[in-house]
Amino acid sequence: MLTYSFEDIGSDSLYEHLYKCVKKDIISRRIRPGEKLPSKRSFAKNLGISVITVENAYNQLIDEGYIYSIPKKGFFAADISSRAEKRPGSITGENAAVTGESRQYLADFSGNGSNIGMFPFTVWSKLLRECLSDYQEELLVMPPSGGALVLRRAIAGYLLAFRNMTVDPEQIIIGAGTEYLYGQLVQLLGQEKIYGVEDPGFPKTARVYEASRAKVRHIPLDSSGICVEQLEKEKVQVAHISPSHQFPTGRITPISRRYELLGWASRGEDRYIIEDDYDSEFRMTGKPIPTLMSIDVNERVIYMNTFSKSISNTIRMSYMVLPKHLMSEYYRRLSFYSCPVTTIIQLTAAKFIEKGYFEKHINRMRNFYRKQRDLLTETIKGSPMAAFAEILEEDAGLHFLLRLDIPCTDEEFSGIMERQGVRLRGLSEYCWQEENRSQHDFLINYSSLSAEQIVTAVNLISKEVVKLRK
Amino acid sequence: MLTYSFEDIGSDSLYEHLYKCVKKDIISRRIRPGEKLPSKRSFAKNLGISVITVENAYNQLIDEGYIYSIPKKGFFAADISSRAEKRPGSITGENAAVTGESRQYLADFSGNGSNIGMFPFTVWSKLLRECLSDYQEELLVMPPSGGALVLRRAIAGYLLAFRNMTVDPEQIIIGAGTEYLYGQLVQLLGQEKIYGVEDPGFPKTARVYEASRAKVRHIPLDSSGICVEQLEKEKVQVAHISPSHQFPTGRITPISRRYELLGWASRGEDRYIIEDDYDSEFRMTGKPIPTLMSIDVNERVIYMNTFSKSISNTIRMSYMVLPKHLMSEYYRRLSFYSCPVTTIIQLTAAKFIEKGYFEKHINRMRNFYRKQRDLLTETIKGSPMAAFAEILEEDAGLHFLLRLDIPCTDEEFSGIMERQGVRLRGLSEYCWQEENRSQHDFLINYSSLSAEQIVTAVNLISKEVVKLRK
Repeated sequence: MLTYSFEDIGSDSLYEHLYKCVKKDIISRRIRPGEKLPSKRSFAKNLGISVITVENAYNQLIDEGYIYSIPKKGFFAADISSRAEKRPGSITGENAAVTGESRQYLADFSGNGSNIGMFPFTVWSKLLRECLSDYQEELLVMPPSGGALVLRRAIAGYLLAFRNMTVDPEQIIIGAGTEYLYGQLVQLLGQEKIYGVEDPGFPKTARVYEASRAKVRHIPLDSSGICVEQLEKEKVQVAHISPSHQFPTGRITPISRRYELLGWASRGEDRYIIEDDYDSEFRMTGKPIPTLMSIDVNERVIYMNTFSKSISNTIRMSYMVLPKHLMSEYYRRLSFYSCPVTTIIQLTAAKFIEKGYFEKHINRMRNFYRKQRDLLTETIKGSPMAAFAEILEEDAGLHFLLRLDIPCTDEEFSGIMERQGVRLRGLSEYCWQEENRSQHDFLINYSSLSAEQIVTAVNLISKEVVKLRK
Repeated sequence: MLTYSFEDIGSDSLYEHLYKCVKKDIISRRIRPGEKLPSKRSFAKNLGISVITVENAYNQLIDEGYIYSIPKKGFFAADISSRAEKRPGSITGENAAVTGESRQYLADFSGNGSNIGMFPFTVWSKLLRECLSDYQEELLVMPPSGGALVLRRAIAGYLLAFRNMTVDPEQIIIGAGTEYLYGQLVQLLGQEKIYGVEDPGFPKTARVYEASRAKVRHIPLDSSGICVEQLEKEKVQVAHISPSHQFPTGRITPISRRYELLGWASRGEDRYIIEDDYDSEFRMTGKPIPTLMSIDVNERVIYMNTFSKSISNTIRMSYMVLPKHLMSEYYRRLSFYSCPVTTIIQLTAAKFIEKGYFEKHINRMRNFYRKQRDLLTETIKGSPMAAFAEILEEDAGLHFLLRLDIPCTDEEFSGIMERQGVRLRGLSEYCWQEENRSQHDFLINYSSLSAEQIVTAVNLISKEVVKLRK
């Protein structure tokens, strides 16, 4: 059985020490991926510590993705090598894998959820009931592969009104979440192509491409977004970007870089841009910059968006807009797939959009999120840590960066906050390529937090920052 | 003559008891392979039970491959032991592609729809409304990757009660339709593996595998299902089969072949069977044969089913049950995927199952489909074409084969009927390998037809058959 010395644990608590020892052995592969760890009870007995201590260490390791548990079987070392030399961790808080049990935080700034109180239950239920009685026949006939036409028409209308995009409903393909659509795109564009993703970026994007056996390159960003030179250098053929609000940096790609990107795409028959517009609805100031698709005359851009941010992340509905030649190819080769979203949900969403509720809901949410953001930024600026804190990229979407001037690593600070119930992830956790970071930027996603959580959490962070600076 | 006591039969019916006694004696070789069984009449007399009871028991034994009958000679014990040593999918024309416009038929026998009038709208809407008000919080928190636990528990309970399968809810993965799950399986098992599909078979299965860049082999069937020798010969590693009711032939794989398939799978570390149980709920006579997964001790079988047949095809919800070692691998490698089904639909389905509505609905549907089938077969037998028509494999599921003795090709006849508004597809349309068919078998899927459509369409078919035979 694994045995560790508890002699020179320094200032660490017992569980911290144990957590670090196991983590080190997993990283060094002394404990192999998939290897079973001792049961909590036997481990505790062997080390002469309490079961609670082992449990705390295991929980921390689970939270960080180093180990996982299988009910009635025990704890196992995760395969961390597949996540790269260093790890863009176990992704956003979007799913706790095996059991669905996840740690409850006082405040989770790494989250990706919706705000529970904001969902328009009454309207949604009313429309859903209307659909159930109005559309009995439609509800039992399979919609076309791309999705229910009423929904695709409603989306086309929305895109015209709010994104100034003129697209045919037939160009729109409804999917069961963006991950599903990423997979479809690999089938459409080919897995032998080289896919470029943003670094730092949303970790799932690369994981879906890799799980689909596509070649992935992590392309660095500069202040304007993805680097076109690097796309060339890495021979990328399909660039997956989020120009309207990059995750996690929050950067907005200016029009000049957008043209540059379109120029890059037009220099190769097989080059495409996947424009991931995931939270563009929540731009808070100024007019939005035109989407790449709306200014693309060469049919090089695939537009993608989701209802996860704008309706609810449990709705699992997203869509992409294919340029016309790809639309034809999609229908020729992939329309044997059934549309994967329950018809009733598609019809309800169509009504929600058509009757103007979607727009109202977004406006309401935008105001709400603006208040959240203002509360957050004001609380930070008024807190004792203000002198050591800077807020970056706060004008769009549902997250910004908090730059802290602290004398420790991102990981260390995240660990300190984690133990106080505040989940905070450093920008470095989303970076693929190692960088010598003197700056400590933390992702602040505020979409699912209450005012109370915001104030409490900022105060806790501030206390720790001030302590570190003393 | 064989004699069994009917004293302690417990809660079994007479025929079940007799079936179990004979089965036990065949397995134990008290009844030798090839041994003649008593005639129905003499057996009934000897045991003091009715001929019908013996007949039911014999039919079940035939269905499961324990005995076989030779016309005018009698019933004989099958050789199951010789095959036990060696030892282990489908679906349909589900969607109209590009615009969603599809031709309206007078009657479409190739269809795969549900019967519109049969969907329990009132109950479903009630439960959905209940979920909307009961589960506000759950509705906005992402369920684990495998799906909402309440639904997975409900399915596990259902599988235990109705398929005699003992599985942990954690082994169950919810997907957005079976096609989605095929794709996930390619990512889990590897696209470099060789996937064997049934020939003839459900065309989409092969298409999804091919779109996912997996290698596909089309393996011929014999009267018991997929040919094990051909699986060996083609070096298949993953066999995708639908043993409980093959599409389109309607064949049921007997227990002997099931053991043979399990034997095949156990002879290679990387061999798996995907057991596609897509319409097993609608077996009309006799008790179902055990699923491959329920008799697999080597963790070689992945079980898969869908709610497309049992609830509605527009629900786009399916599930698979992974053997435990694959479950662990799934969680390790693929649990970053979000569950693709809208949470509200998962929760509603869980209530639907748990409260017994699912069972009631299936029973109601089964009775309805049995009447449909009886009307169909009687109309065919009473029609002028009766002398040139034979009905095959009508005892299970929602389709059977109609063999017509006609002097033209399948395509020619389908074309004639198409012009009259009757959609009929020949078995040859589902065959991968060209065969010189002297027989003309047509798929008769009756799940979405009304009584009126059935009678009208059979009369049209009959008229044409008679015309051709003149």
